[in-house]
Amino acid sequence: MGTLPTVDDVARVARVSRQTVSNVLNTPAIVKQTTRTRVEAAISELGYRPHASARRLRTQKSSTIGIRMEAFKDGVSGAVLDRFLHALTEHADARDMRILLYTAASPEHEIEQLARLRDGADVDAIILTATFHNDPRIDWLSANGMPFVTFGRPWGLNDMDDPSHLWVDVDGYAGVRDAAQHLTAEGAKRIGFIGWPSPSGTGDERRRGWLDGAHISAEDASALARATTDGVPEGTRAALELIAGVHPPDALICASDSLALGASLAARSLGLELPIIGYDNTPVAAAMGLSSIDQPLAEAAASALELLFGPSGSNVLPAEAFDEEPKHRLLAPRLVVRSAARAVPDDTTDASAVGNHNRKETL
Amino acid sequence: MGTLPTVDDVARVARVSRQTVSNVLNTPAIVKQTTRTRVEAAISELGYRPHASARRLRTQKSSTIGIRMEAFKDGVSGAVLDRFLHALTEHADARDMRILLYTAASPEHEIEQLARLRDGADVDAIILTATFHNDPRIDWLSANGMPFVTFGRPWGLNDMDDPSHLWVDVDGYAGVRDAAQHLTAEGAKRIGFIGWPSPSGTGDERRRGWLDGAHISAEDASALARATTDGVPEGTRAALELIAGVHPPDALICASDSLALGASLAARSLGLELPIIGYDNTPVAAAMGLSSIDQPLAEAAASALELLFGPSGSNVLPAEAFDEEPKHRLLAPRLVVRSAARAVPDDTTDASAVGNHNRKETL
Repeated sequence: MGTLPTVDDVARVARVSRQTVSNVLNTPAIVKQTTRTRVEAAISELGYRPHASARRLRTQKSSTIGIRMEAFKDGVSGAVLDRFLHALTEHADARDMRILLYTAASPEHEIEQLARLRDGADVDAIILTATFHNDPRIDWLSANGMPFVTFGRPWGLNDMDDPSHLWVDVDGYAGVRDAAQHLTAEGAKRIGFIGWPSPSGTGDERRRGWLDGAHISAEDASALARATTDGVPEGTRAALELIAGVHPPDALICASDSLALGASLAARSLGLELPIIGYDNTPVAAAMGLSSIDQPLAEAAASALELLFGPSGSNVLPAEAFDEEPKHRLLAPRLVVRSAARAVPDDTTDASAVGNHNRKETL
Repeated sequence: MGTLPTVDDVARVARVSRQTVSNVLNTPAIVKQTTRTRVEAAISELGYRPHASARRLRTQKSSTIGIRMEAFKDGVSGAVLDRFLHALTEHADARDMRILLYTAASPEHEIEQLARLRDGADVDAIILTATFHNDPRIDWLSANGMPFVTFGRPWGLNDMDDPSHLWVDVDGYAGVRDAAQHLTAEGAKRIGFIGWPSPSGTGDERRRGWLDGAHISAEDASALARATTDGVPEGTRAALELIAGVHPPDALICASDSLALGASLAARSLGLELPIIGYDNTPVAAAMGLSSIDQPLAEAAASALELLFGPSGSNVLPAEAFDEEPKHRLLAPRLVVRSAARAVPDDTTDASAVGNHNRKETL
């Protein structure tokens, strides 16, 4: 590149040694005033700026936060962590910090990557995503004294009262409970649920929210719920099973927008107008006019940085992040209500079909 | 953190000065053999690793590539650059390089960010996205000697024969031309096109591909094409206009999956089974069973690194990246053909309705 002035350039212009320039930059008190003035004039004249790497060596601060880039997921909800990463980069930038991305094929591989980042002092802190029960990455980070916050609560532990580390998460229980209460207020009497097989940290929380919000009795729970792997056809199949039951649901909540889209296609194929609420508020839900539960990902990103570095504007790790009891933030999601009919402009829609929840003739 | 051995620890264990440890690391030839052996033993014993920032100072290499994180786009095609970023991070990791993210609200703000990265020697190279006609960022990077490659060709210049810098792009012309030829082979006689208002670098290329692939005469072009801003309702409106024309199209190509989804909703609302092909092969297209043109984003990411650093395995900027004539890569997209009916499992679908391209009775 060759266009940047170097310490050598400053030394030449100021007619001093390289060491003297270094002393002016690092220990100015030991340099004679006249020499210091001459070096500072040369620095100013040349537009020299101390190398970031040199600054980092002195301060032991990289102003950089590491986060794993997940393998690309080409599904309906694949972009959730991308949305978090967008928000994180913007909030970090507002603190004059950058985001460094790394990849890892497994938790063990991620620990190797974390060790490299630690050895290189490349990052000030780590934001760990996709946490799970007995996560070895959390043990490693704790044991090695690397500052970190998890996006995802420490599943399986007494995370609320006695968290072992900083964490941010979204309250899926509250999100689904509120969605069930909304459907009940709209007149639904038998709200069904399509979720994932247990045990699943996030999945079990969402199912609990449905049980409580829809006031489902233990007897009704099995007739009104289906557990399946995630996917559009899986949602269709589970919805068709529920609808074919003796007492079919009059509304549905799904643990993901993929399942919700599948369920809505099932309902449409039967000419049935069934209120359905998905989870993640994906572009697919928006495009198809599906109601969905929106995770506050921008707030989650801002909270992760606040837990690590304190209020906005600071990028220095506070001592209490390690000395005091770790803190956490459980954020409330938000229900986005849509009408599927809106996807087609009003002037082309049969108005009588909008908001009609009764069975229609199948094609 | 305090757990990492420092130069001072090595000096204490080896009973030498800090300067001697530094000399062993940087200029071993000037250190006595017996001293050198003792320092090397201490380094090995303590597991000391030279600080990455110190290494960078010596090598003037950060092994880091900068790329702007775009503001999150919550639309159907919003994830295209995210897919590129995922692939870029993985390919960079395979070269032992990392990705540094920054944000910028405008081209001018991005130039400020680039200047900061240059001043800090924080990155070895930049990957510039979302290029446009007379892009000031390209002028700045060229004038300041920062190695860079653009994802997006230098619009408006003689980019093929005399590129002024390295670039990678996807051949939207060929993608749409091939899609039109596919529809023609399937029996379509009047292929319509919904695109964006001209001038638009990418949009105009895609429209040209339609004109050539569908063999559209100048007289027919205006009756068979609509230009609109991007969006699902916009696609619906444009499709309804085309369908209401004197000679409606018997197939449609759209410049985006948003427009294609809108068009497919228009066709469904009329009970019309119209073959429609979108662009970007988004999760929405996959979920809805829409055909689409897929951009080879992993190949684009790999190509960007190859243009900057040579074949995989290298992370040193080759001299020819600056001295020889700049190179480019124009990659071919791939048509993904889907049947909309597949979104519902076979056992629930009326088989006679699948692949039927005739008008059906409207509900």
